[in-house]
Amino acid sequence: MDERAALSFLGDRLSHAGDDAAVVDGQVLTTDMLHETTDFPAGTTRYTAGWRSVGASLSDVAAMGAEATAAVAVYAAPEFSEADLGEFVAGASDVCEAVGAEYVGGDLDESREFTAATTALGRTDDPVRRSGASPGERVCVTGTLGRTGAALRLFERDATGDGGAEPEAVERANDLFRFEPRVEAGRAVAPHATAMMDSSDGLARSLHQLAEASDCGFAVDADALPVDESVREVADDETERRELSVFFGEDFELVFTVPERDLAAVRESSPTPISVVGEVTESGVEMDGEPLADRGYTHGGE
Amino acid sequence: MDERAALSFLGDRLSHAGDDAAVVDGQVLTTDMLHETTDFPAGTTRYTAGWRSVGASLSDVAAMGAEATAAVAVYAAPEFSEADLGEFVAGASDVCEAVGAEYVGGDLDESREFTAATTALGRTDDPVRRSGASPGERVCVTGTLGRTGAALRLFERDATGDGGAEPEAVERANDLFRFEPRVEAGRAVAPHATAMMDSSDGLARSLHQLAEASDCGFAVDADALPVDESVREVADDETERRELSVFFGEDFELVFTVPERDLAAVRESSPTPISVVGEVTESGVEMDGEPLADRGYTHGGE
Repeated sequence: MDERAALSFLGDRLSHAGDDAAVVDGQVLTTDMLHETTDFPAGTTRYTAGWRSVGASLSDVAAMGAEATAAVAVYAAPEFSEADLGEFVAGASDVCEAVGAEYVGGDLDESREFTAATTALGRTDDPVRRSGASPGERVCVTGTLGRTGAALRLFERDATGDGGAEPEAVERANDLFRFEPRVEAGRAVAPHATAMMDSSDGLARSLHQLAEASDCGFAVDADALPVDESVREVADDETERRELSVFFGEDFELVFTVPERDLAAVRESSPTPISVVGEVTESGVEMDGEPLADRGYTHGGE
Repeated sequence: MDERAALSFLGDRLSHAGDDAAVVDGQVLTTDMLHETTDFPAGTTRYTAGWRSVGASLSDVAAMGAEATAAVAVYAAPEFSEADLGEFVAGASDVCEAVGAEYVGGDLDESREFTAATTALGRTDDPVRRSGASPGERVCVTGTLGRTGAALRLFERDATGDGGAEPEAVERANDLFRFEPRVEAGRAVAPHATAMMDSSDGLARSLHQLAEASDCGFAVDADALPVDESVREVADDETERRELSVFFGEDFELVFTVPERDLAAVRESSPTPISVVGEVTESGVEMDGEPLADRGYTHGGE
């Protein structure tokens, strides 16, 4: 069984599966695990790793339209240095502070590979699920797409060892890796959104997941996609640009649907720019009239 | 830095460190990571692994005197089989059900070694911390000590390959590994307990940690320890019995202090037997008048 088949198998066994986070009595709970070989390319600082791994869980809280309360992490590594640990905790604390949550620690574990297992806690009385989209509504995304794909290109550029620009490329890649979880935007959008999830598996995969959960389709306009400027810098052509912004994922933006009449209110209340990228249809996921492949980010080590 | 030094380093940086779980707005949050090489000996079923790993986090919730609400886990393994995953989820769900919590899923991750990262959520308006013990109070433990140490001996017995008794030894070891988190006992004890933690690092280490947090000492009576009958079965002599019941740990019983006048009420309200094992003193941790070493469970792989 691959990871996707296994998740589907689990979905049939767990009543809370199928959303970005579980909701129990108004408490929103979600957990993730990130590994050095698959998630933190050479050049990723421990500060960035702490920020990004805890941020991934906070993004799931945001995707439910919830307030973020707290986060914990297990920091697993072959050995513990004060510098590494201190940086990781600083990154974890700072990303929590950025969204009004509290980083309350966690645990340490000896492990062959640097690994971060993170959990975020949130709160909402009215979670936004993946299942409420209806034909005729608009589909929107927050922020910009492709930052993580662009960051990986920059990390790779460093690996080729071609001279003086490397430290800057790595610094910029680290900046791109430290995304801001869209907690505030998620809360602003929640009263209007009919379905929502984050784009951690890429826009294409997110649309397919929303389509399956809501039993609908999507028609997306490629020109309307908010492609990050970093993608234009690193991509050689339109094909690569498309790959990084639509399929690559791990951008942790919100993808959501709203009735057209709510668009103005959503735009006004969200602190993060909102792009309308297409509309909800009866069935099929298409971009510019062509079927959009149901594929997403494939981790490097798989 | 070893794990203990690293935890101490973190404790200076995180306001919520120093208890079994963090408490934020009445919500209790705790996370752990267990690995195949260090925590699941050969013979441990995936059902037992699911039960035990989620149980370890539920035990931390119990140690705060809190109600257990929900748990999540990341199941990381080199590959996913329906049988393994289904068993793990069944064990995780059953241990949650045993304490009135809900297992709400989590995530999957490809990893070289089978690893479970678990998080439990609880709720209390009046958490019991490690820091409130005062000289003259009694120190108590729930249930019995040494089950995990005895289980490991039984798992090892199987490894020697000495014949027909093995499957029974492994089955009994799995039974011993599936402890019941003391959530109900913790809630019963909470109104009376002045300090509490679980015995996951062993009774000796727990007493030293309580002594440090409460700035007190302990005088424990070896004859009063509730040594599990399984320890008497597997241990060859008194030294080994002491090792398994006092130092080995991973039993996940509660260790707590109460004023003597509350003992009757504590005993009456707890569904789990309570043993008074000694008293709180001004300083020093002693057993039968001799200093008790500050050492605990050392994971096999370290």
